Amino acid sequence: MFTIKFLPYNIDIEVEEGTTIIRAAMEAGVHVNASCGGEGVCGKCRILLEDGVVEDGISSMLDAADIEKGYRLACLAKVKSNLVVRIPIESSVDAGVLNLPATPRRKAKIKQMDFEDLKEKGLFLPPVEKRYLELPEPNAQDHLPDVTRLVSFLKINYGEERLQLTLPVIRKLPDILRKDNFRVTATLERPVREGRKTRIINVQAGDTSSHNYAIAMDIGTTTIYGQILDLLTGEVLSEYGDFNGQISYGEDVISRIVFAEKEGGLDIMHEAVVKTMNRVIEKIVKKAKIDPEEISTITLAGNTTMTQLMLQVNPRYIRRSPYVPAATIYPPIRATDIGINLGDHVVALVYPQISSYVGGDIVAGVMGSGMYRTEELTLYIDIGTNAEIVVGNKDWFACAACSAGPAFEGGGIKLGMRATEGAIEDFSIDPVTLEPMNITVGNVRPKGICGSGLIIMVATMFEMGIINNLGKFNRDLDTPRIREHDNIWEYVLAWKQESQIDRDVVLTEIDIENLIRAKGAIYSGYQTLLEEVGLSVYDLDRIILAGGFGSYIDLEKAIVIGLLPEIDTDKVTFVGNGSLMGAKMSSLTNRIRQDVAQVTQMMTNFELSETPSYMDHYIASLFLPHTDMEHFPKLKARMEARQRR
Amino acid sequence: MFTIKFLPYNIDIEVEEGTTIIRAAMEAGVHVNASCGGEGVCGKCRILLEDGVVEDGISSMLDAADIEKGYRLACLAKVKSNLVVRIPIESSVDAGVLNLPATPRRKAKIKQMDFEDLKEKGLFLPPVEKRYLELPEPNAQDHLPDVTRLVSFLKINYGEERLQLTLPVIRKLPDILRKDNFRVTATLERPVREGRKTRIINVQAGDTSSHNYAIAMDIGTTTIYGQILDLLTGEVLSEYGDFNGQISYGEDVISRIVFAEKEGGLDIMHEAVVKTMNRVIEKIVKKAKIDPEEISTITLAGNTTMTQLMLQVNPRYIRRSPYVPAATIYPPIRATDIGINLGDHVVALVYPQISSYVGGDIVAGVMGSGMYRTEELTLYIDIGTNAEIVVGNKDWFACAACSAGPAFEGGGIKLGMRATEGAIEDFSIDPVTLEPMNITVGNVRPKGICGSGLIIMVATMFEMGIINNLGKFNRDLDTPRIREHDNIWEYVLAWKQESQIDRDVVLTEIDIENLIRAKGAIYSGYQTLLEEVGLSVYDLDRIILAGGFGSYIDLEKAIVIGLLPEIDTDKVTFVGNGSLMGAKMSSLTNRIRQDVAQVTQMMTNFELSETPSYMDHYIASLFLPHTDMEHFPKLKARMEARQRR
Repeated sequence: MFTIKFLPYNIDIEVEEGTTIIRAAMEAGVHVNASCGGEGVCGKCRILLEDGVVEDGISSMLDAADIEKGYRLACLAKVKSNLVVRIPIESSVDAGVLNLPATPRRKAKIKQMDFEDLKEKGLFLPPVEKRYLELPEPNAQDHLPDVTRLVSFLKINYGEERLQLTLPVIRKLPDILRKDNFRVTATLERPVREGRKTRIINVQAGDTSSHNYAIAMDIGTTTIYGQILDLLTGEVLSEYGDFNGQISYGEDVISRIVFAEKEGGLDIMHEAVVKTMNRVIEKIVKKAKIDPEEISTITLAGNTTMTQLMLQVNPRYIRRSPYVPAATIYPPIRATDIGINLGDHVVALVYPQISSYVGGDIVAGVMGSGMYRTEELTLYIDIGTNAEIVVGNKDWFACAACSAGPAFEGGGIKLGMRATEGAIEDFSIDPVTLEPMNITVGNVRPKGICGSGLIIMVATMFEMGIINNLGKFNRDLDTPRIREHDNIWEYVLAWKQESQIDRDVVLTEIDIENLIRAKGAIYSGYQTLLEEVGLSVYDLDRIILAGGFGSYIDLEKAIVIGLLPEIDTDKVTFVGNGSLMGAKMSSLTNRIRQDVAQVTQMMTNFELSETPSYMDHYIASLFLPHTDMEHFPKLKARMEARQRR
Repeated sequence: MFTIKFLPYNIDIEVEEGTTIIRAAMEAGVHVNASCGGEGVCGKCRILLEDGVVEDGISSMLDAADIEKGYRLACLAKVKSNLVVRIPIESSVDAGVLNLPATPRRKAKIKQMDFEDLKEKGLFLPPVEKRYLELPEPNAQDHLPDVTRLVSFLKINYGEERLQLTLPVIRKLPDILRKDNFRVTATLERPVREGRKTRIINVQAGDTSSHNYAIAMDIGTTTIYGQILDLLTGEVLSEYGDFNGQISYGEDVISRIVFAEKEGGLDIMHEAVVKTMNRVIEKIVKKAKIDPEEISTITLAGNTTMTQLMLQVNPRYIRRSPYVPAATIYPPIRATDIGINLGDHVVALVYPQISSYVGGDIVAGVMGSGMYRTEELTLYIDIGTNAEIVVGNKDWFACAACSAGPAFEGGGIKLGMRATEGAIEDFSIDPVTLEPMNITVGNVRPKGICGSGLIIMVATMFEMGIINNLGKFNRDLDTPRIREHDNIWEYVLAWKQESQIDRDVVLTEIDIENLIRAKGAIYSGYQTLLEEVGLSVYDLDRIILAGGFGSYIDLEKAIVIGLLPEIDTDKVTFVGNGSLMGAKMSSLTNRIRQDVAQVTQMMTNFELSETPSYMDHYIASLFLPHTDMEHFPKLKARMEARQRR
């Protein structure tokens, strides 16, 4: 880590070696004009290196004299030592700006349950255990049947009661026992509820007790993630994610259901998702370098539609009023029965659903985040096209789903895109010149805007008065970047020649409108849910963000646009892929498996579409940040201060 | 029924219309010379019809004058009214014979448990029940998931607790519910032990509660029998038996095991037996005219080898010392998992095994015969190549198996055959002329001898002193029928021209030796078993014979050869196919399913090969009836009386 001092702002920041200066500046909240996103094309991001060593930073946009003086392009120069960097006068504009540095990025801290913690708390009840046994060999006086020999030995030597073998194990047993002189390792699957049967799900010759693995899997609408877990240490041995093969039949759950309703469609959707699951399994097994035979259990978490498609249960009624899912709790299912390529002794545990639109992925998040074990009143939000909201603590839970639309994933945004190479993911604007500072994924010329970038742009411009609380551009500003094009007002983020596409990269008022609708749906969703249970955002002790998108959100900016409530950002944590984490925790301990059923039962689902106040809240939310600024007192004060200046 | 009076013996017997006179005579214990078995070829069985009407009975062997007098051939004449029949002087020989009519045939009475009896005793706990339900339809206020709707309704309206659905049912449920406006019939599989889960194994649209069926099946080494049972009435709707497709790979269990040990052999044996099972199922479903979808459960009983082959469990160690089977109790198994063509909701219950040679067929017999519910000390014998013996009552059981060899099935007998057309199944002999009276299956010319016929021949000739207690023919008797041929002594049952084969039908001393070995193995088997538990045959309250062969055995003759102990024959009952009956009872009531586990646990298996006294008993049994005549006091007295005369 090296320290960089930005002058004239006198702001220090620590960054890793190799970071570009422009990213360091953005992180420090220092604006540097930069249109082209880091390829040295626009030449606007000149900085003066006053002390220290950088790598690169030189381009044809700089003449020899400038280079001699220490000028570099911030988008190309990489940190190699502690630095002192001055943003030149021509880049900033007037001293007033010194008092208005862009806010530094405040992302949610990652907080996940961990295995050691589990062990310490006595919550580690492995669902599958292996026992190495040296059985007495049969003889003329002792010719117990093979199964009886195994079961009696476990009973006498380990106090194991109520043992049951599966047919595949009985089939293997006679030969396995005699392979290594009656020395075998038995794999015992523990009952989730004490007192039920322990099933012997595998037997292996010799001592294999040190190899015992589980798979945790998140079946997402877009992506399927899998992990191999070591059941002895809790360690994640490998992880891999791949696009859900159903994507070619539709982007969202509704289009998947529509397809599944066609003749043979359900089978196709089922096969597509299972094929991806099997590909993921193959990859993680290979990466972890384990014998797939040693995998003893798999836990699957997905939303209601994904779960039904995976289990080949017709999802037709999920999308039809009154929106009835097939089931909440599914019985343990033999993995091979749904086409998963694992040993036929492997039982799949499927996370239960709450309703048609609050599914097992959310329940898994609630379990994995540990929010169900604390007194703290927690709001759990999984941001996506379908956003799910859970509020509660160890004593109660309420949940709801709302349709945010695809804006956060770049859908409905003119140049919207996923957070892949060329997406503008961070942004600031010079309050005087209105010149942009674009940071793109991969430090290449911009192609479009991803969700997290969109939030930052809209929030930044709103706070600077460039767009108003209706999401409209100030028509009076003197810049060629704000213009009317085809009857739609827009801001030019990068000119055609600075972009990777054959036209200007723009942010339009329609894009802003769609973002407002998306954030409005979520804000009014949790607003309504809290109101229904007699609480308000001020009662919240914690907000947990889940989903791939959550990790990229700038918390302050999310508050400015009115997506998150105005809450101490330290109370906001990010849980990552909550669904995968929950699946992992359930794979590691029966304690979580036991608790899941209870949590599922105590969770009350609210159908927002049938809650009259939801529409009122929604309409009131279709502003930046909200029609009622009293919901955002600090922002209100800040904006009033700015207007006074 | 008509009454026939046989003169000069003055013996009356009731027979059905259409019975041949020769069979009626045999049943009455009246000897009529008859070599050819009923085709009118030998012409020896002339009788004089003194009163009444017969059909047929005339052949070219009778001249017109004889016919006019009322002579008929007994093997051709069929009873059409009450008759008075005189056996002519030339057929019987001297008056002394009048005092020695052949003993009338005493077969064991059939005694089986029946359904009404079960109901009366409160033992009828159907393992599967159907419930017709009219569920409330979902609406905006009530959008319970489909599974929850079903489960809650059953809970609230019928007090059903701990319900679990299987995946196939969850898959069907959404569409089935909506097929007939939420009117459905649920099939509930009751737990064998109270307090465990009730599984909903099927759902059907509308009211199908009057159709609920089970299959019971006996998986025999030779034959596979199946029945369709109506679970509402206990009625057997259809039954069918077919040869086990494994027969082409070997006649007995050992040859099946040998084949299964070959590369791929186990799979072939598994497929062969399952193919037959499926053929039987197809037949009984067709005969019962039911929808196979309405079959809810199947119970399977077979010996240890058949069970392992059916379940595809390597039987290799069954035939190798120390003779270890894979398992005693098998878990419930999904029928489709072993290749049975039934709905995937059908769970197969497999009867437990006791040891490598006392299998589920015997346990089923013990259950089905009800002997496990009585105070009476009962000996259960299943006679076959492998004979199984169980002794005990409601408090305890001991069992053993012994290898009797195939003599009872015609194996090792020069002209031995199964009891199919042309087999001599009954026999008497004229004590003076030593002329035979052969009765064949199908009333055709003899081809050979079946097991029941063999016992009668040997017993009859032994009692008459034609063969001695070593099984050797009396060399001094003046008849061409007893002769030495290729160094082996034999009795000619039918001359070549009276037979269906191109040579004389004979009974040889080697045949007798094999029969003695077979009966000796069984007698010494239960002798040893009883001794091991401190009892003797005189303590027995009841003997139950099982197996196809048991129904044909003449009880008195079986005592004479020393197969059965000298016991009041009224105490001997015949249970038929005990295995099928047990499977049937388990299909009808969970009470039997519960009891099976207990019975299995309380049954002590004795390995006769490791019981030193067994060999002594066996050697002492290699006589007619036994080396120690004190075991057969009545027979001893009878024979002494005969010698004195």
